[in-house]
Amino acid sequence: QLDALLNPLHAADVADILEQISSDERAALLALWHGGIDGEVLSEIDESIREEVIEALPDNVVADAVRELESDDVVDILEDLEAPAQEKILEALEDADRVAVEQALAYPEYSAGRLMQRETVVAPEHWTVGEATDYLRGAEWLPDQFYHVILTDPRMHPTGYVTLGRILSSGRDMRLKDICEDSFRTVQATDAESDVAYIFNQYHLISCPVVDDAGRLVGVITIDDAMNVLDEEHEEDMLRLAGVGDEASVSDGPVETVKQRLPWLVINLFTASLSAIVISQFQNTIATLVALAALMPIVASTGGIAGTQSLAVAVRALATRDLTRANAARVVRRELVAGLLNGISLALILGVAGSLIFSDWHLGLVLGMAMIVNQIVAALGGVLVPLTLERAGLDPALASGTFVTTLTDVMGFFAFLGLATLVLL
Amino acid sequence: QLDALLNPLHAADVADILEQISSDERAALLALWHGGIDGEVLSEIDESIREEVIEALPDNVVADAVRELESDDVVDILEDLEAPAQEKILEALEDADRVAVEQALAYPEYSAGRLMQRETVVAPEHWTVGEATDYLRGAEWLPDQFYHVILTDPRMHPTGYVTLGRILSSGRDMRLKDICEDSFRTVQATDAESDVAYIFNQYHLISCPVVDDAGRLVGVITIDDAMNVLDEEHEEDMLRLAGVGDEASVSDGPVETVKQRLPWLVINLFTASLSAIVISQFQNTIATLVALAALMPIVASTGGIAGTQSLAVAVRALATRDLTRANAARVVRRELVAGLLNGISLALILGVAGSLIFSDWHLGLVLGMAMIVNQIVAALGGVLVPLTLERAGLDPALASGTFVTTLTDVMGFFAFLGLATLVLL
Ligand SMILES: [Mg+2]
Ligand SMILES: [Mg+2]
Ligand SMILES: [Mg+2]
Ligand SMILES: [Mg+2]
Ligand SMILES: [Mg+2]
Ligand SMILES: [Mg+2]
Ligand SMILES: [Mg+2]
Ligand SMILES: [Mg+2]
Ligand SMILES: [Mg+2]
Ligand SMILES: [Mg+2]
Ligand SMILES: [Mg+2]
Ligand SMILES: [Mg+2]
Ligand SMILES: [Mg+2]
Repeated sequence: QLDALLNPLHAADVADILEQISSDERAALLALWHGGIDGEVLSEIDESIREEVIEALPDNVVADAVRELESDDVVDILEDLEAPAQEKILEALEDADRVAVEQALAYPEYSAGRLMQRETVVAPEHWTVGEATDYLRGAEWLPDQFYHVILTDPRMHPTGYVTLGRILSSGRDMRLKDICEDSFRTVQATDAESDVAYIFNQYHLISCPVVDDAGRLVGVITIDDAMNVLDEEHEEDMLRLAGVGDEASVSDGPVETVKQRLPWLVINLFTASLSAIVISQFQNTIATLVALAALMPIVASTGGIAGTQSLAVAVRALATRDLTRANAARVVRRELVAGLLNGISLALILGVAGSLIFSDWHLGLVLGMAMIVNQIVAALGGVLVPLTLERAGLDPALASGTFVTTLTDVMGFFAFLGLATLVLL
Repeated sequence: QLDALLNPLHAADVADILEQISSDERAALLALWHGGIDGEVLSEIDESIREEVIEALPDNVVADAVRELESDDVVDILEDLEAPAQEKILEALEDADRVAVEQALAYPEYSAGRLMQRETVVAPEHWTVGEATDYLRGAEWLPDQFYHVILTDPRMHPTGYVTLGRILSSGRDMRLKDICEDSFRTVQATDAESDVAYIFNQYHLISCPVVDDAGRLVGVITIDDAMNVLDEEHEEDMLRLAGVGDEASVSDGPVETVKQRLPWLVINLFTASLSAIVISQFQNTIATLVALAALMPIVASTGGIAGTQSLAVAVRALATRDLTRANAARVVRRELVAGLLNGISLALILGVAGSLIFSDWHLGLVLGMAMIVNQIVAALGGVLVPLTLERAGLDPALASGTFVTTLTDVMGFFAFLGLATLVLL
């Protein structure tokens, strides 16, 4: 009955169901259904619960499931498992597959070598369309998905590739060399997977050969896997900007959630204490004019929003490589001018409103001036913090949110209370 | 000389260069180089400056450039232009192409109909591999990229598709029907492009036939275009969460930047006034104990971070459809418990530190209790606000950032100052 319900579903949808139910329900479902689980489901399931699922299944079921997968999917499953669980799966593979998987695992995490499948379709450079067609028709085994025939020289260096559409539409005598794609490029097995995703997106690639240090073909990456990396890079940027660990999943329980979030909250507790220290320097000013205590969060909070805006634009532009050394100076200048203009606009609204409500144009002036200062600080901070992190070789999304809001809070309180002390007392 | 420099570059890289230089430099470069610009560059260039570039070029150069593109790329260029500029390009197209483009433009913006290319490769259901091969070899014209042969019944309803790899590796007598892909699915021309991107990512599609209301094949979407949509959806979520308009580009000048950001800053000015009003209700409390003014931003700011964390996780999970009606209740419960645990942890640190520094355990108690309340409000607000927007058919990323930080600011100040009034006075 369960089989009748789940079998018509795509593996990705089955994986989603497993992710969305609670841990207890998952255990119950797997106990009922283990006969049916296949490799694709294991491959689709989120890393956060994959280990749990694999442990819940009998060893032989896991072994059967993994054997049908391509090498890149086996690697993706193995790399997140503990050593004993890894061993068990490796043993279940055929010799050739095991070697392929072990070689891929030898490349660093998050590298092209981990992402590629070892299964490639190659032809010597001098072949014709006819020879390639005959070879493909006669081949005993071909990968599930391949979109190009890769041409290699005798030393296995890839020199070009031909789309299957081109092979099918060309005459048998046409030389493969003469119908290669312009878009041909290769990546190094040690390249970062985020660079690979960028190249696929930038150059509209469908597949890309992977070479080792010596330039020899070692595998191929297909766009579905690159798209997945792009998606995860986005997730990472978004979560890091918000001060959550890299990985957060709906299937996480409260304790995992606390583990991801509490560290940044504690850091923020300390950075917020900086604001408190700044404010406490102006206790006499506040005691004299208590209305200042009510007004000061306006300047700080509007600065926080402006900093977040500038930061989001900068982090996104760094991720898409639209913000580079070539135009960094121009973008920083743009932020400076935009911050000034935003500051003047907000200062006019807030200054006039403050003057009228408190019948004190000095107070309006202080509000407006503090707003201008803090808007400029926010706009510049939002772009300079991620640029600096990037130059230092760090992730521009990491910690920059906390840093920028601390900056705008501290500057907001300091500018407002400082000016108030000078002008109003 | 300019040609020698730019011609070896990929169109996407040329477009990036045009985006990164200033508007004046761009005009100068285009004046020098208009002989060489090709359709791919126009297609790659960011929408924010495409109109500017097209206007800077002589009409016949634009016409030549556009004529070489596939219909989906022409549509992508046309849809963002003003009517007169659209007309000029349409006139330059051949009759058949013009009709195809006009039909695509008749579909709503951001629909599958706008994203698809009209150029498809189809075969009758009853064909064999041999017939398909002969047809492809003899075809006068085939699209630049195609990965499947789509099978249709006599009324042009798509019934399956076969990968080119499968055609190449199967015997001539094999019936196409018998080697169709399991993954076959179609989308409606009126479906949202974000749904299309989701389907490609979820089911690892490479191409997907598009059908009209009557189920007839009208075009095909390829993964490179779906990947582009996925990327832009991410951009939209990230920028909207930060309170920036949907589109922000490095090539924007200060004035465009102000237009994108000032509206949200003004809104924040008003929502921040809510905090000011709350605080002003407690002026007597603050006048009695000025230290409260320094401490109150700690509770509000830590709440803001917690709300942002919860919000980012929820918006991302809604975008990937990991958060659905089926598990919303469980996720909200998770946030509640996590908020409580985070609150207790932070309350212990802040409460003890506050008690020691001010030698007043009553103050520590007030800090801790306010922290717990605000952490729970933040965690719940971060998930409930986007869930509510989604149910209401709105974008869960839109406005939720401002809403959640306003909530945590107001609650932070109210809980802290309210409890202080009760306990300390
Ligand atoms: Mg999923
Ligand atoms: Mg993930
Ligand atoms: Mg796969
Ligand atoms: Mg992985
Ligand atoms: Mg793969
Ligand atoms: Mg990153
Ligand atoms: Mg670009
Ligand atoms: Mg864009
Ligand atoms: Mg294209
Ligand atoms: Mg468009
Ligand atoms: Mg296309
Ligand atoms: Mg969206
Ligand atoms: Mg704040």
